[in-house]
Amino acid sequence: MGRRTRKTAPLGITLDAGAPQTIHWQIREQIRRAILERRLALGALLPSSRLLAAELGCSRGTVLTAIEQLIAEGYLVSRTASGVSVAPDLPDEMLISPPSLGPPPNPATGPAILPDRTIAMLARVTDIGAPEPNEPPIAFPIGQPDRQAFPFPLWARFLEQDWRKPAWQVAGSPHPFGHLGLRQAIASYLGAARGFACDPGAVVVTSGVRQSVSLFARVALEAGDQAWIEEPGYPGMVEALAASEVEATAVPIDESGFALNAALAAAPDARLAIVAPSHHFPLGTVLSLQRRLALLSWAERTRGWIIEDDFDGEYRYAGRPLAPLRALDWGGRVAYLGSFSKLLFPTLRLSYLILPEALVSAAEAIMPWISTPAPLLGQGALARFIADGHLTSHLRRTRLLYASRQQALLEAVDRHLKGLMAVEPDSGGMHVVAKPDSNSRLVPRVIHNTG
Amino acid sequence: MGRRTRKTAPLGITLDAGAPQTIHWQIREQIRRAILERRLALGALLPSSRLLAAELGCSRGTVLTAIEQLIAEGYLVSRTASGVSVAPDLPDEMLISPPSLGPPPNPATGPAILPDRTIAMLARVTDIGAPEPNEPPIAFPIGQPDRQAFPFPLWARFLEQDWRKPAWQVAGSPHPFGHLGLRQAIASYLGAARGFACDPGAVVVTSGVRQSVSLFARVALEAGDQAWIEEPGYPGMVEALAASEVEATAVPIDESGFALNAALAAAPDARLAIVAPSHHFPLGTVLSLQRRLALLSWAERTRGWIIEDDFDGEYRYAGRPLAPLRALDWGGRVAYLGSFSKLLFPTLRLSYLILPEALVSAAEAIMPWISTPAPLLGQGALARFIADGHLTSHLRRTRLLYASRQQALLEAVDRHLKGLMAVEPDSGGMHVVAKPDSNSRLVPRVIHNTG
Repeated sequence: MGRRTRKTAPLGITLDAGAPQTIHWQIREQIRRAILERRLALGALLPSSRLLAAELGCSRGTVLTAIEQLIAEGYLVSRTASGVSVAPDLPDEMLISPPSLGPPPNPATGPAILPDRTIAMLARVTDIGAPEPNEPPIAFPIGQPDRQAFPFPLWARFLEQDWRKPAWQVAGSPHPFGHLGLRQAIASYLGAARGFACDPGAVVVTSGVRQSVSLFARVALEAGDQAWIEEPGYPGMVEALAASEVEATAVPIDESGFALNAALAAAPDARLAIVAPSHHFPLGTVLSLQRRLALLSWAERTRGWIIEDDFDGEYRYAGRPLAPLRALDWGGRVAYLGSFSKLLFPTLRLSYLILPEALVSAAEAIMPWISTPAPLLGQGALARFIADGHLTSHLRRTRLLYASRQQALLEAVDRHLKGLMAVEPDSGGMHVVAKPDSNSRLVPRVIHNTG
Repeated sequence: MGRRTRKTAPLGITLDAGAPQTIHWQIREQIRRAILERRLALGALLPSSRLLAAELGCSRGTVLTAIEQLIAEGYLVSRTASGVSVAPDLPDEMLISPPSLGPPPNPATGPAILPDRTIAMLARVTDIGAPEPNEPPIAFPIGQPDRQAFPFPLWARFLEQDWRKPAWQVAGSPHPFGHLGLRQAIASYLGAARGFACDPGAVVVTSGVRQSVSLFARVALEAGDQAWIEEPGYPGMVEALAASEVEATAVPIDESGFALNAALAAAPDARLAIVAPSHHFPLGTVLSLQRRLALLSWAERTRGWIIEDDFDGEYRYAGRPLAPLRALDWGGRVAYLGSFSKLLFPTLRLSYLILPEALVSAAEAIMPWISTPAPLLGQGALARFIADGHLTSHLRRTRLLYASRQQALLEAVDRHLKGLMAVEPDSGGMHVVAKPDSNSRLVPRVIHNTG
């Protein structure tokens, strides 16, 4: 076959190796645009892929990839004798007049402008020093249970049995508060483990503390209301409240934990207190009974609300635990939060919120419109795990394990880091707090004893 | 044993059968309060359970339940000879002086006051007529795939195999965007099924459209920015945007769908358009290519953003689909939403958001602080379901099934409801729209053809 001179369409393609899009994507989209904007006429012949590749300085395979996709989509047609040309019969509606589109902007010259709040958050996150995703875990990550201790084969079997032939409620539209069996199991568990009676109807299964807090704030508070949060405290509370248009006021805690007087001084009209009374995060302080009762009294007098975050109340190694606020909640003002992610394995992402009775029916009615219910996938298996007693025995095992690890860590710190840092024993929880010795120059960091 | 006169403590218990709390809870809490407030002295003897039951007009078992729990908690002690008394050695911190607590309020007299926004939402929800939770499904629910068509035994086996011995990333801290294998499977699937290349790094696995929209709005927009949403449209968009402090402006659609002119008239400074171009919800309109390009051009010129909700783009029974906006997105301004919940089974609750490249790294950094990642539980099994070709064959099967059901429904409406309502065939999707005939008095409702 000799070379022929062919009248080919001017394509005007410019490639940008620095753009985020692949080269074949850039070729394909510029040809598509040229057709749509009628710069390439219907039926017009394209240059050969070899010529195009040479002109554009890329491989012929790249050009062919672009062209084949446009053929598959009907923009181009391939005729073996004459090469590839624009389809002769594109529907009118696919063609637009050029003025409605300007020239394609170069994505490399102007990066998308991030909003100020995202830039501010990026700066804050960089300060915290979040671990890179997909990196192996750091040496002392916080809130990570020992995954070796969890009976995964049993868990996998429960999952299989639960999903082999699911009931219609499970595969279809379940209750927005979650799997009924799990809600019953949680209610019984709390009765036995934490000493308060709770109606399974008040149990909401959630995807985490953030969802629990947002949901509660959305149902119980007005937009613009204020809430007290502990400072320091669990990160993410500010954002969880903001998602329901509730403003967080940080209340610095003293050596006995959250103090109502300090809170009232910071924001006298707050309508919600979020506290971790059984084991403050991260300092481990246990809120005294006196302060608990003062807080309950405030809630009753002012019709305020309390969220009691009992995030690791299950791990207590010494002493008798104080009754949870919820167990003293005569006025029905306390919502109680717990989580299975720290007890079993983090990616489970199943937590729960025990609503005050007065909010149950309102939350039930509006939840489908304001929140995404926690996925049902693991809820049946977890219900069985709890009901068959595996949670209790898992907690018994890990309580001993974590207590012994805390002991080992304290001994090691004493042996190897004396004069650099001091670590106080903690009667509960999954981490300890290390403080720099007065003559060391270390910055305080929470270190962890379970992983 | 003869009867003895015993000096018993005055308990002053009042029971309220109308209160939400159980009777034994009321007894227990009033005794506990009496002890804490020193109205019951340390070591004081309690009346016998028989006497208490008679006085309070309840069963002795109820009184015993309350007392046994207080014994277990250490508030009371039981001495076989002399009955039950207040513990002699409560720690001082458990005792508070009475003035700090008022009299226990009666929870029955004053119901908790719901905030105005919750009351308003309750009224709105009642208007919509949401189905009661846990009720069997109504005859024509919307967005419900045929659950009989899904291979649950295969799914259960994949779950079991995935969780028997999970990798540390899976059991521990995964990438906030989700399971890497699933993100890769989604990217390949979109390339083949929807004709656009996408980097697995830009795929965010989410718990649903609401989370996708909130996350995008939080990362891409400023608080107070405006977004256009289609009216009518997918319920929940207003709330999803509000969760990120972005204001929704409803843009009434015409017979060709979303029109940029109408949108600019409604809110000229909007920074985001949320549209369902391939199949409008609920009307089924397909947005013309001309309007698609005008919208893309607006986004490029103004650095605005587009969320393309392709919620049922997989179900198309006739004609060639138009390219998604994302496939024409030269300027990198389009986020693309898809979901597996409507394709496989609703309680799966796994959706995805394809981010514009320019937002990927910012979203990756701040996501752990602003959003709860979708649970990993089903992500590995779903990745395998897609990669092994089961999604494609499931879609092929259900496409035929739903097309034949739509046909059957149309015939039945024509036969039985002639003169009452008219139902137009729809070239795609999982529902059809019924309109009242001009001389009927029916109210329009969406009816559904898959369940």
